[in-house]
Amino acid sequence: MGTRVLQAARELGVDIDSICGGRARCGRCQVEAVEGSFAKEQIVSSPRHLTEMGEAEQYCLQRGRLDDGNRLSCQAKILGDVRIDVPASSQVHHQVVRKDYEAHDIKLDPVVHLYFVEVGQADMHTPEGDLQRLMRALKEEWGLTGLSCDLVMLQQLQDALREGKWQVTVAIRYGNQIVAVWPGFRDQVFGAAIDVGSTTIAVHLCDLISGEVRASSGAMNPQIRFGEDLMSRVSYAMLNPEGAGQMTTAVRQSISRLIADTAGQAGIGIEDILEITLVGNPVMHHLLLGLDPTPLGVAPFALATDRSVDIWASEIDIELHPNARAYLLPCIAGHVGADTAAVMLAETPWESEKISLVIDVGTNAEIVLGNSDRLLAASSPTGPAFEGAQISGGQRAAPGAIERVRIDPETLEPRFRVIGCELWSDQPGFDEAIGEQGVTGICGSGIIEVVAGMYLTGIIRADGSVSGDARSRSNRIQASGRTFSYLLHDGEPRIVIEQGDIRAIQLAKAALYAGARLLMDRMGVDRVDRIRLAGAFGSHIDVKYAMVLGMIPDCDLGQVSSANNAAGTGARIALLNRASRIEIEQRARTIEKIETAVDAGFQQHFVDAMGIPHTTQAYPELSRVMDLPQSPQATSDAVPGRRHRRRRRRG
Amino acid sequence: MGTRVLQAARELGVDIDSICGGRARCGRCQVEAVEGSFAKEQIVSSPRHLTEMGEAEQYCLQRGRLDDGNRLSCQAKILGDVRIDVPASSQVHHQVVRKDYEAHDIKLDPVVHLYFVEVGQADMHTPEGDLQRLMRALKEEWGLTGLSCDLVMLQQLQDALREGKWQVTVAIRYGNQIVAVWPGFRDQVFGAAIDVGSTTIAVHLCDLISGEVRASSGAMNPQIRFGEDLMSRVSYAMLNPEGAGQMTTAVRQSISRLIADTAGQAGIGIEDILEITLVGNPVMHHLLLGLDPTPLGVAPFALATDRSVDIWASEIDIELHPNARAYLLPCIAGHVGADTAAVMLAETPWESEKISLVIDVGTNAEIVLGNSDRLLAASSPTGPAFEGAQISGGQRAAPGAIERVRIDPETLEPRFRVIGCELWSDQPGFDEAIGEQGVTGICGSGIIEVVAGMYLTGIIRADGSVSGDARSRSNRIQASGRTFSYLLHDGEPRIVIEQGDIRAIQLAKAALYAGARLLMDRMGVDRVDRIRLAGAFGSHIDVKYAMVLGMIPDCDLGQVSSANNAAGTGARIALLNRASRIEIEQRARTIEKIETAVDAGFQQHFVDAMGIPHTTQAYPELSRVMDLPQSPQATSDAVPGRRHRRRRRRG
Repeated sequence: MGTRVLQAARELGVDIDSICGGRARCGRCQVEAVEGSFAKEQIVSSPRHLTEMGEAEQYCLQRGRLDDGNRLSCQAKILGDVRIDVPASSQVHHQVVRKDYEAHDIKLDPVVHLYFVEVGQADMHTPEGDLQRLMRALKEEWGLTGLSCDLVMLQQLQDALREGKWQVTVAIRYGNQIVAVWPGFRDQVFGAAIDVGSTTIAVHLCDLISGEVRASSGAMNPQIRFGEDLMSRVSYAMLNPEGAGQMTTAVRQSISRLIADTAGQAGIGIEDILEITLVGNPVMHHLLLGLDPTPLGVAPFALATDRSVDIWASEIDIELHPNARAYLLPCIAGHVGADTAAVMLAETPWESEKISLVIDVGTNAEIVLGNSDRLLAASSPTGPAFEGAQISGGQRAAPGAIERVRIDPETLEPRFRVIGCELWSDQPGFDEAIGEQGVTGICGSGIIEVVAGMYLTGIIRADGSVSGDARSRSNRIQASGRTFSYLLHDGEPRIVIEQGDIRAIQLAKAALYAGARLLMDRMGVDRVDRIRLAGAFGSHIDVKYAMVLGMIPDCDLGQVSSANNAAGTGARIALLNRASRIEIEQRARTIEKIETAVDAGFQQHFVDAMGIPHTTQAYPELSRVMDLPQSPQATSDAVPGRRHRRRRRRG
Repeated sequence: MGTRVLQAARELGVDIDSICGGRARCGRCQVEAVEGSFAKEQIVSSPRHLTEMGEAEQYCLQRGRLDDGNRLSCQAKILGDVRIDVPASSQVHHQVVRKDYEAHDIKLDPVVHLYFVEVGQADMHTPEGDLQRLMRALKEEWGLTGLSCDLVMLQQLQDALREGKWQVTVAIRYGNQIVAVWPGFRDQVFGAAIDVGSTTIAVHLCDLISGEVRASSGAMNPQIRFGEDLMSRVSYAMLNPEGAGQMTTAVRQSISRLIADTAGQAGIGIEDILEITLVGNPVMHHLLLGLDPTPLGVAPFALATDRSVDIWASEIDIELHPNARAYLLPCIAGHVGADTAAVMLAETPWESEKISLVIDVGTNAEIVLGNSDRLLAASSPTGPAFEGAQISGGQRAAPGAIERVRIDPETLEPRFRVIGCELWSDQPGFDEAIGEQGVTGICGSGIIEVVAGMYLTGIIRADGSVSGDARSRSNRIQASGRTFSYLLHDGEPRIVIEQGDIRAIQLAKAALYAGARLLMDRMGVDRVDRIRLAGAFGSHIDVKYAMVLGMIPDCDLGQVSSANNAAGTGARIALLNRASRIEIEQRARTIEKIETAVDAGFQQHFVDAMGIPHTTQAYPELSRVMDLPQSPQATSDAVPGRRHRRRRRRG
C-alpha cells in the first residue's frame, strides 16, 4: 500500500515508459485505472484505490501531457485493489500502427532514447569533469553504464548543464552513446527514413517517441541529369573524373532539402533530427557515400562493402543536428542493394513457412525467395523497359503518363487512364480533366497492360509478333517498316506500340521470370505461396496482366499483392526498431546470393520465357481467372479475343 | 632443419617485427647470424648454417632495406646450429633511445601499425564487399579480428585495391580500427607529438616505425594577441561572444602550420601523418577542442571532461591524413591539465619507492608528489611573475632577455647573460655578440637569480624589503618613491628591480613552496627524495638559486634536476607507446587531487613562506652548499655579503 503505480508495475515486470524518470513531467507513464462495475471517473478520484491527483499531475493535465481520466503512474499511489490498464502508448515497446500494404507492425524501440537527469553541480572538492558528473547521474538514476561521448556532444554539454541549472535531457543511442544534450526537460526527438531511388528520393520524418510519420516529402533524384538509368550514371562516372563527385553532391543536397522540407511541414528544426536511415540500390548507396560506383558497372560487380554503414550524417553532408547519425542498411550483392535489404525487412519472408517471392522491379528486378528455412536473392537484368525507358512513347510514372489500358476485343479500340486523372479516356470530361498537359507518354504499368491487352485481343501472337492480319479488324494496326504497330493514342504526341517495344517488354519479362524461376530451382520448389511486388511499379500494376504476360510465376492471384513502397517501409523499420538492424545485418550476410549473369539455368529459363505467356501449363491459376489462348501453337495465327473465348467455352 | 629463422624465432617466443608478412619486402625482420669462433661473413654464406642469400634478399640489400651482413629472417632457412642475434630495431617492441633529461626509455609500440596483405580479388561467385575481402585477408594472414573501418577509409579502399593489384598496406589502430590503406607495399607512417603551451606551441614529428623524432618546430601561441596569460584569455572569452572561437581557430591553424613545417623538413606529406597526441593546460585543452574555457576561470573551475579525448584530427581542423586521429591526454583537475598528465607520464614517479616532487612552473605551478604507493597533485596560484609578467622590465624567455644574474658581494655590480648569447655581460665582445637587439628585458630565471643575488649580497632583507642602507655600498641602490630599487642594467630599456617586483616574486615563490608543502603534509612526509623541474622555466633555472629563494623544499641538490620539456616528452610517449595511454588514464583518475584554493593548510604555508628563505632550518641541504644569512632575524639590518660570510666562518 502506498506504492507508486510505476514502481508496482515494474515489480510485476510491466515496462512502463518514462523520459523524466518519475518527475511528473513527461506524461509517458500515464495509465488508466479501471475496476469492475465502477464508472471510470469514480475510480480515478476514489481515495480508496489511488491517491488523489496532486499539483504535479494537474500541471501535466493542463499542459496536455496527461489524457483526461488517466493518471501518472509515477505519482499515483496504490491505496487498495485497483486494476490498471497500461495504454499502448505508455508501453516501453509499443506497436506502431501499420498501413494496409505493410506486412507487419513495427515494434517501437528506436536506437535513440531520451533521458532526463539531474546532474550533481560542479564542486571544487571533487574536481570531476562535467561529462563525468553527467555519466554518474545517468548511472545512478537510469542504470546506464559504459557510456561514450564524442566531441560534438561535449561541446554542447557545458552550456546545457548551466542553462538547465544542472538538469538536462540527453539522447542516448544504442544504450551507450550519448549523442545530444538539451537544457532542462525535453520529450521530443525525430528521425527520418530515406529511400534513395534512382528516379525519386522519398523522406519520411518520424517522431521517435510515438513512432508516427509526421511528414513526408519526395523529389526526383537530381542525378537524372547525369543519366536516366543506373548504368548511364555509372558510365558518366567512368567518363568524367569529377562525375561521381557531382552525383554525390547532387543527391546529398537533395536529401538535405527534402529533410528540411519535412521538418518545415512538421514545425520542427532540422537540429531536432538525430537519426536517419537510408536505403538505395548499390549504385545509389555508393554515390551517396562518396564511394566509386564504377566497379558496380562491370563484372564482377564488386561492392565496396556488404555490411551496414553507421556514420555521422555530417560525413555525408546531410544537415541535421550536428551529432546526428546515419545508418545505411547493408547491400547484399553487386546488384542487390540496401533497398532490397529494406524490402526484406518490411516483408520478413523468414517469419513464415510459406514460400514468399518478393520482387522489387526497377532497372534490375531484385528478387528474394524463401521462407523460415531458407532465403535466396538474385538480381535479374530486366533493363529499363518496365520503367518506360527504351520504349517509343515511354516515360517514367509521372502525371500525364498512361498507366492503365484496356482494349476492346471486338473493335480493338483502346481506353486508358493517365496518372493524375481519375477518369478513363472514354469517360465524359476526360479531356478537360487531364487539362493542358494532356497525355505525355506511357509508363511501365501502361506498357504491361497494353501488351497484355494486345495479346488477349489477338493483335499479337504468343511469340510476340504483331499480326499483320489484324489490320483487317482495325486501322489502329498499321505497317511500320517490315513489321506492324498499334496506335494507342492519336494525339500530340502520338503513342504507338511498335514491334520493338513488345520485344523490349518480352526481354524484360523473360528476365524477371527467369530470375524468379532460377531461385525456385535452387530452392527446389515449383510453386510459390505468395508474391509481393514492391516499388512504384509494383504498386501500380494490375497483377493479372503481369501474369498474362508471364512476368511472374503462377500463384493464387489472391496471394499476389503490392508491397507498395516496401523499401521505404524497411527504412522506417530500421529507424524505429533497433533489433531490426541486427536482424537485417544477419539476414543479408546469410542469404544465398545467386548470380544470374553466369548461370546456365538462368539462360535457359530466359529463352523459354520469351513467349506470351510462354506456356499456359505454367499458369493453372491464370487459366482459372482469365480466358487465355490455349497454347502458343494455338495462337500462331491471329485469333480474335471473342473467337478464342468461345473456343475455350466449348472446351 | 630447413625452418625459416622467423618461424623458428616465433616458435621460441622471440617477437621479430614484420610489415610485409614474410615477403622479403620490408626488411623489418633482419637478424644477424653469429657463431663462436667463425667470422661473421663465413657464417652468413655458409651453407652449413643458413641457406644462401636468394634473389629476394639481394633485392632488399640493394634497396638499402637490409644491412650488410644481416639476413632476412623470413627468407633464411636454418641448416645447422646457428646463433641468431635480433637487433633492437627488429624487435617488435624495441626501446627508443632517450635523451639526457628524459626519465626513462620509451618502449616502441605505437597505436598504429602497418600490415601488408594480399587480398582475394573480387569474384562474381562470392559477392563479397571489398572491405570484407580485406578483412578476411587480415584475419588469415595476420590473425586480426574484430576489425572496424570508417567511411574515410572505405572511400580509399576501392582505388587502393585496384591500383595495388589487390596488394595493399593497411594501417591498423589499437589493433582493431583500419584507418588507412595504400596500394602495394609501404613501410612508413608518421605521428606528431604536440605541446600546446600558453606561450609556445611545439611539434615533434615522429617516425612511428623507428620511433625517431624526424623534425621539430615551434612557434609562439597566436592566442597571445588575445591575452598574454591564461586568465586574460579566459576573460577575453567571457567578454567577447566570439572570443573563444577566435582563439580556437588561431591555435588550430598554428598547429596545422607547424605540422606542415615539420613534414616539409622531413620530406614527407602531411597525409603521411596518421596520429597526433596533444597536451596542454586545461584552458589550452578546452580552447583547442572548441570547449568553453570560461568555467575554468571561476570557482569551482569545472572541466568539461577529465578523461582522455580520442577524436579525428579533422574534428579539430588539423590538416593531416583525412583519417588521422588525435589523442589528448586527460586533464586532471581545473588547474591541473593534460600537460601535467604528460609530465607524469614522462617522469613516472609511481615507478619508485622514492618520493618525487615534480613541478611544472607556468602561470600556475602544477605539482605532483608521490611514489609507488601514493600520488597527489595540486596547482598553486603562482601568478605569472615566474614568466616575467607583472615585473617591471620583465618579459617572456626569448632572445634578448636576461636569464642569468650574478651580483658581486663587494661592489654589488651585476653581471648577466641574455638568451641567445653565450657570453656574460662582463666578458669582452658581449656588446657585439648581443648585436642590435641588445638587452630587451628580464625573464623568469633572471628574476629568480637577481632576487636571490640581492638577498645573498644583503641588498634585501629576509623579509624581502630593499635596504636603504645599501645605498652607501653602491649607487645602483636608489630611492624609488618610499621604497628602494636596484639598477640591474643601465641601457635602453633600463632594467630596474623594484620593491614591487620582489614582492611579486615572494608571492609566487611562497605559493609554489606552499603547494609543495601542502602535498607533503597530505602525504605525511617532511622531505622529498627527488625534485624534477619541468617546462622552459625549469630548464633554465639554476636550482641553487631557486632554493635560496625558498621556492622548493629542501632536497639533496644532486637530486634536483630539470625535466626539460617533460610535457612534450609525455606527448611523445603517448604517441609511441600504446600502453602508456592506459597507464596515464588510470593514474589521472586515481591521483589525489588537492585543491589549494580552499585549503587552510595551504594558506598557512603560504604566509610562512613569504620570507627569503623563510627559515634556514628548512634548508639543511642549502646550508651545506651555500653561505646563507643564519636567520631572518640575523639579517633584519643590512648585512653586506662579506661580513655575513665572515660571521658564518667564525660561527
